[in-house]
Amino acid sequence: MSIEKMIRLHPDVGNDFSEAIATAARHAMLCSLFCTSCADACTAEPMDMRLCIRMCHDCADICTATAHVAVRRTGQNVVVLRAQLETCIQACEACAAECEKHDHEHCRLCATMCRECADDCRTALVTVG
Amino acid sequence: MSIEKMIRLHPDVGNDFSEAIATAARHAMLCSLFCTSCADACTAEPMDMRLCIRMCHDCADICTATAHVAVRRTGQNVVVLRAQLETCIQACEACAAECEKHDHEHCRLCATMCRECADDCRTALVTVG
Amino acid sequence: MSIEKMIRLHPDVGNDFSEAIATAARHAMLCSLFCTSCADACTAEPMDMRLCIRMCHDCADICTATAHVAVRRTGQNVVVLRAQLETCIQACEACAAECEKHDHEHCRLCATMCRECADDCRTALVTVG
Amino acid sequence: MSIEKMIRLHPDVGNDFSEAIATAARHAMLCSLFCTSCADACTAEPMDMRLCIRMCHDCADICTATAHVAVRRTGQNVVVLRAQLETCIQACEACAAECEKHDHEHCRLCATMCRECADDCRTALVTVG
Repeated sequence: MSIEKMIRLHPDVGNDFSEAIATAARHAMLCSLFCTSCADACTAEPMDMRLCIRMCHDCADICTATAHVAVRRTGQNVVVLRAQLETCIQACEACAAECEKHDHEHCRLCATMCRECADDCRTALVTVG
Repeated sequence: MSIEKMIRLHPDVGNDFSEAIATAARHAMLCSLFCTSCADACTAEPMDMRLCIRMCHDCADICTATAHVAVRRTGQNVVVLRAQLETCIQACEACAAECEKHDHEHCRLCATMCRECADDCRTALVTVG
Repeated sequence: MSIEKMIRLHPDVGNDFSEAIATAARHAMLCSLFCTSCADACTAEPMDMRLCIRMCHDCADICTATAHVAVRRTGQNVVVLRAQLETCIQACEACAAECEKHDHEHCRLCATMCRECADDCRTALVTVG
Repeated sequence: MSIEKMIRLHPDVGNDFSEAIATAARHAMLCSLFCTSCADACTAEPMDMRLCIRMCHDCADICTATAHVAVRRTGQNVVVLRAQLETCIQACEACAAECEKHDHEHCRLCATMCRECADDCRTALVTVG
């Protein structure tokens, strides 16, 4: 099942399809799950992981919202889509930078996912507006 | 990037890992995007799609919540996880049944995704508690 | 600003307005914030609050989804609305029961909010379908 | 039940409590419900409301995320909180501008809610960092 294919079927899309935005939406949803899982795993670790937990939760909330905004193609909401993609990049980079400070394998995986999601949002931004 | 692998790294998981719950979480997030995209595409169609739009939005909200609950492994919240998975099955089946009434390709794809997500939640339920 | 008044303006509502569902939606959104705040405060406490954190996060996710489903009045999605309200009651009761085990004032306030939200969902259920 | 009081009970808050951020979080959750309700009501209107529907949905998603990020007080995530508040202001202003073009009472009420939410986010921004 491909969300890229799904969006291409939208009656308004036609030649105006941006594969990059669809991919960013898909990865942002996955990143939201990774961050939620990392925050949850950090909560179960014996050492103080509170800042990492906080940043993971913020990033998860922002990624979920970004994905839903990015998937829509009815009409246009360019200024808002751009702002949300840019915020998502900042949330992902901040979360990755914090996760990279820790030795837990789940933090490393989460950081990698966040960096990829930020890259996808940057690529998507080029095709917006 | 695999959420199944991510969850396996949770310090409390060990041998208690349920691949089925992780997969249900991943597909529920994708199903949320499909439903959001289908509702948005239906809004742009010329005929009356209002019931389909409503059911897609409800399903999207429920899938997102289900995925986040399903991904957590710190402590246990079995009764709530079971109830949310069962509600997700109902939301997905109701959305699929409505989408299948329409000829739009995006509705068909959304229905298929919803049926798969419902199946994944049923498989996950067997492994909970 | 009253969401009850807002929903009453929906073109399909007319005499079929349920004040109880509107109130449940409003309180579920507030309960989602209380649970998110309680989980965050628990993370900053020095003792082991991990189960409380988990249940608060699950409850927050479920309350947000329930509120959005409950607010819609276009067409009908009765089976799904009922299932989600019932799941929300279970999530709120489970979260309240865990929060009541702890002496933190934020846990007590969160428990009170969760019990109220569960009551509102029960009252709403009577008016659905 | 007051989220402002709730946040004040966070162990890290002390004298650093920002009433403005707490209020912005509370109103953003209410605004998310108003936008969801307005999108749903617009779907049931006989005329073409598709752009309004889209902007309401985007605004709802962004308000929910903003509220959850704004409510957290463990550690600091200032750059991300500022970016999300700014994006929320843009989403609310864009949604209000579109809603104000229509004669529906629900659109007018939604526009008023969005303008208030944008104002609250601006007031909150002054106290961040």
